[in-house]
Amino acid sequence: MLLRMSSLFLRTLRDDPADAEVPSHKLLVRAGYVRRVAPGIYSWLPLGKMVLENVARVVREEMDRMGGQEVLFPALLPREYYENTGRWTEYGDLLFRLKDRKGVDYLLGPTHEEMFTDMVKGEYSSYKDYPVTLYQIQTKYRDEARPRAGILRGREFVMKDSYSFDLDDDGLKRSYERHRETYIRIFDRLGIDYRICFATSGAMGGSASEEFLAPAETGEDTFVACHSCGYAANAEAVTTPAPAAVTGEQPALEVLDTPGTPTIETLVAHLNTHHGLDVTADRTLKNVVVKVTTPGSDKTETLVIGVPGDREVDFKRLEAALAPGEPAIFEAEDFVKHPGLVRGYIGPQVLRDLGIRYLVDPRVVDGSAWVTGANEPGRHAVNVVAGRDFVADGTIEAAEVKAGDACPVCGSGLSIDRGIEIGHIFQLGRKYADAAKLDALGPDGKPIRITMGSYGVGVSRAVAVLTEQRHDELGLRWTREVAPADVHIVGTGKDDQIEVAGRIAGELEARGLRVLLDDRAGVSPGVKFKDAELLGMPTILIVGRGLAQGVVELRDRATGAKEEIPVAEAADRVEAACRA
Amino acid sequence: MLLRMSSLFLRTLRDDPADAEVPSHKLLVRAGYVRRVAPGIYSWLPLGKMVLENVARVVREEMDRMGGQEVLFPALLPREYYENTGRWTEYGDLLFRLKDRKGVDYLLGPTHEEMFTDMVKGEYSSYKDYPVTLYQIQTKYRDEARPRAGILRGREFVMKDSYSFDLDDDGLKRSYERHRETYIRIFDRLGIDYRICFATSGAMGGSASEEFLAPAETGEDTFVACHSCGYAANAEAVTTPAPAAVTGEQPALEVLDTPGTPTIETLVAHLNTHHGLDVTADRTLKNVVVKVTTPGSDKTETLVIGVPGDREVDFKRLEAALAPGEPAIFEAEDFVKHPGLVRGYIGPQVLRDLGIRYLVDPRVVDGSAWVTGANEPGRHAVNVVAGRDFVADGTIEAAEVKAGDACPVCGSGLSIDRGIEIGHIFQLGRKYADAAKLDALGPDGKPIRITMGSYGVGVSRAVAVLTEQRHDELGLRWTREVAPADVHIVGTGKDDQIEVAGRIAGELEARGLRVLLDDRAGVSPGVKFKDAELLGMPTILIVGRGLAQGVVELRDRATGAKEEIPVAEAADRVEAACRA
Repeated sequence: MLLRMSSLFLRTLRDDPADAEVPSHKLLVRAGYVRRVAPGIYSWLPLGKMVLENVARVVREEMDRMGGQEVLFPALLPREYYENTGRWTEYGDLLFRLKDRKGVDYLLGPTHEEMFTDMVKGEYSSYKDYPVTLYQIQTKYRDEARPRAGILRGREFVMKDSYSFDLDDDGLKRSYERHRETYIRIFDRLGIDYRICFATSGAMGGSASEEFLAPAETGEDTFVACHSCGYAANAEAVTTPAPAAVTGEQPALEVLDTPGTPTIETLVAHLNTHHGLDVTADRTLKNVVVKVTTPGSDKTETLVIGVPGDREVDFKRLEAALAPGEPAIFEAEDFVKHPGLVRGYIGPQVLRDLGIRYLVDPRVVDGSAWVTGANEPGRHAVNVVAGRDFVADGTIEAAEVKAGDACPVCGSGLSIDRGIEIGHIFQLGRKYADAAKLDALGPDGKPIRITMGSYGVGVSRAVAVLTEQRHDELGLRWTREVAPADVHIVGTGKDDQIEVAGRIAGELEARGLRVLLDDRAGVSPGVKFKDAELLGMPTILIVGRGLAQGVVELRDRATGAKEEIPVAEAADRVEAACRA
Repeated sequence: MLLRMSSLFLRTLRDDPADAEVPSHKLLVRAGYVRRVAPGIYSWLPLGKMVLENVARVVREEMDRMGGQEVLFPALLPREYYENTGRWTEYGDLLFRLKDRKGVDYLLGPTHEEMFTDMVKGEYSSYKDYPVTLYQIQTKYRDEARPRAGILRGREFVMKDSYSFDLDDDGLKRSYERHRETYIRIFDRLGIDYRICFATSGAMGGSASEEFLAPAETGEDTFVACHSCGYAANAEAVTTPAPAAVTGEQPALEVLDTPGTPTIETLVAHLNTHHGLDVTADRTLKNVVVKVTTPGSDKTETLVIGVPGDREVDFKRLEAALAPGEPAIFEAEDFVKHPGLVRGYIGPQVLRDLGIRYLVDPRVVDGSAWVTGANEPGRHAVNVVAGRDFVADGTIEAAEVKAGDACPVCGSGLSIDRGIEIGHIFQLGRKYADAAKLDALGPDGKPIRITMGSYGVGVSRAVAVLTEQRHDELGLRWTREVAPADVHIVGTGKDDQIEVAGRIAGELEARGLRVLLDDRAGVSPGVKFKDAELLGMPTILIVGRGLAQGVVELRDRATGAKEEIPVAEAADRVEAACRA
């Protein structure tokens, strides 16, 4: 392959696009790989299309290698499949819905569990048919509330999704493990740095689940890692070790005047100064009111979440814990409608009488005593004992996770980082098989309910992730596996330099390398060098002024290493670098 | 590649699907290549996905070879692009429309002229940038009123669409010619039989246009061909040679009683029997009333079409002639509202007074005399002379074309056949460049309006067309270029036969052939043979009973030729057949 920049449909931009916030968005637009069409909806220009295709090729090769069989589903799907599983409703606003000319309801597939289940049910009937793993690389649609960061979180995007179908739990575990190994190979080949993290199940249903998270400052996911035992988890999936229940007599609840203490900090200071106590923020109980709606229902539940006062409620953890319920902030006008909830001074003592559900952090164990609101303006209660002065309706993982929190496995301190989800593997179990009644006829003539796994790779997202992780201040830096070309050959100003560059390019093309040749006339060497750094091919060859002395310059884009080499050796040296 | 039928996700069906009418639909479903999800919406199973991918590969290779550059647009597009060109409205019910969560209007792209135009405008500015040809292979959506025939006319389908951008008409012609040559190469490689036919422009706008039509009994398009001069045209694009105007005095118009003559046949018989005339059907003038709506307008126009009485109005030709107007049949209740139109006895003499537009077949030249309705029940008029007794508002190509009609080029008799559109090439001109104001800055500093071509190949449709043209009573017959595998090796019943079949398969895989191996245990030879014929790989090798005598059977699926060959030569012979 030989691409000539003189005719390549590519115009690099000097400035970052106005709407871009993250490096991958800025660079992929500046380098002419993608263009915005609408919020979260992008077009791929020739170089971008090549990178996208290369990522898809790696994914396909590894999926085929593990015995996955490729199929292709439509994106436009009739409502009925998603009605059966409740997801037509549960997906809420995330689903693009439409009607055809006859008024029949359709959706644009956000994920295809229902469709794969139905397909297997249509073809297979005997236990001898199983196990089977099917996959597709296909365009998906999600009407994100906040599409952001270019192709990092798009509303139309390319995913590989696969599904395993097994007769029993052991089979599912084997299928899951094979996917896990395949994903490791895929991301290693792509050159993405990743962590495998325990995850929650989100809108999928099901049980065991891990995410492949690519560490990146711009990531939307937060994950913890334990450097002692290797535990890693998406923050939404981190479990809080519950202390033992407190036993023994506790002092009676006492209500104190605490004027002007709307925050935990002011409250702690006031109690310690004016009431002679020795309270710390983690012994206060902060009660956060939210209103929860569930897609498909027009009811709104008022819910109170109790967390230790040294922590905020982490809204993403809260959302994960309540899914498919959708929590929203309790606004001033909501408080007006609930006079029993005294803003800033809420305590759980009255919630049962108010008929409001109360969920607490796992640290709020039976017998533990707390400082909390007294449900009167300017007053707080101390020695409010869980199980005695209030009874929670359950626990919830909604408190923020902090660096140094105890690892739930070994108790060491956790570190916290940000990352981008690039893969998700998931033991779905029988949720979708139950909905579709997917059975195999067993050897004894009795039906066996199939158990499923669901596995995803963000194909278009991987392009952005590679950019986030590998760019430098000059531009993109592709791994060879995904780069649009192996080598970028720059012929600078003079005609003979362009001519020699073209000759070397032709020779390398004949040797099977993928070559990008800058043969543009009338473009300054400085602009060409800048473009070469920006476009990010792994190897760069400059045919410039040194040609008069018989030398050209070989550059490694990743390391920045530069070397002058004899022009006669150029083709051999480039080939060696590209095949290393 | 080695596919084993023991684990391949494939179940062939013994019976045709109930909803299937055409061979490709029946066979692709029976052979387990596709499955229906909704009307006009299909999933691709593993073998089907391979064929689809092979067609796409051939198209991509040939597009790259002609210098086309591949990009990829979203399918989900904001309304604004299609609003600018009027197509948001003009497309009518054919467009899938939807709103996002913010209530913003989107559509699912039926074709991407607007998007490509916008993309080029975004990147290119100087005359030096041109010409350029861009293409994509992408999923498109059209809400067909009558999706039919499986993947032959789907509502979600895969197309290659490309667009050329040139500075002047000569450049456009060159781009068009290069596409024409590329399409010839593509369809030749795929093994599709086709005719290149003059075509109309449909909803695209623009001028010169040709369709690649694949002759097939089940085709929805009708095309004519002249075996004398080589002229071929889609029936909608056939032009009728107009006879010379008739000069000289004609007898005066005369109204005759013609009771009980609601049809042309009864009219001609009555006139010749009771009035002593010598009239033939082609001298009668049949007037057909239609009502025409235009998408985006709530007005309906009543229109009368005049054609010689020996021909019907061809509704597809009429639709093409009136596009984007949409004609519909004038119903009994419509006649009630228009008492001036006497059903069965309409003559053009009164239309001008009624304020109704009248368009005539090109054969209705000035001075020609006709027998037509007298606008009274049971009466007709003779010697009704065009230009004297009525004046048409224009001509229209709406009369049916008949075998033996005069070729518009050489006058020889035309043949008529049915075909399926597999490609369309099209000199769009400046319609979309005008809408987007796509200009290049010329060498003199003045803007040059760009002129465009639009070119499409039905990628998923080609899979169905290959089936329509190449199947036999036993099943599919793929060309090697698109077949899922080069060879289908059948190991019949006994273990050693399956073992030898597996050994040969392994050897052929090692030689780089794509092998489908029937290694299923417990399946009868008869079923395996039937499946091999049904699935349609070009070469079949049977390792069966003859193995005891050291021979296996080599079959050519296309010709049906069978030959016994020594098992020791099997690999060499199969390879030779596959590489022939």
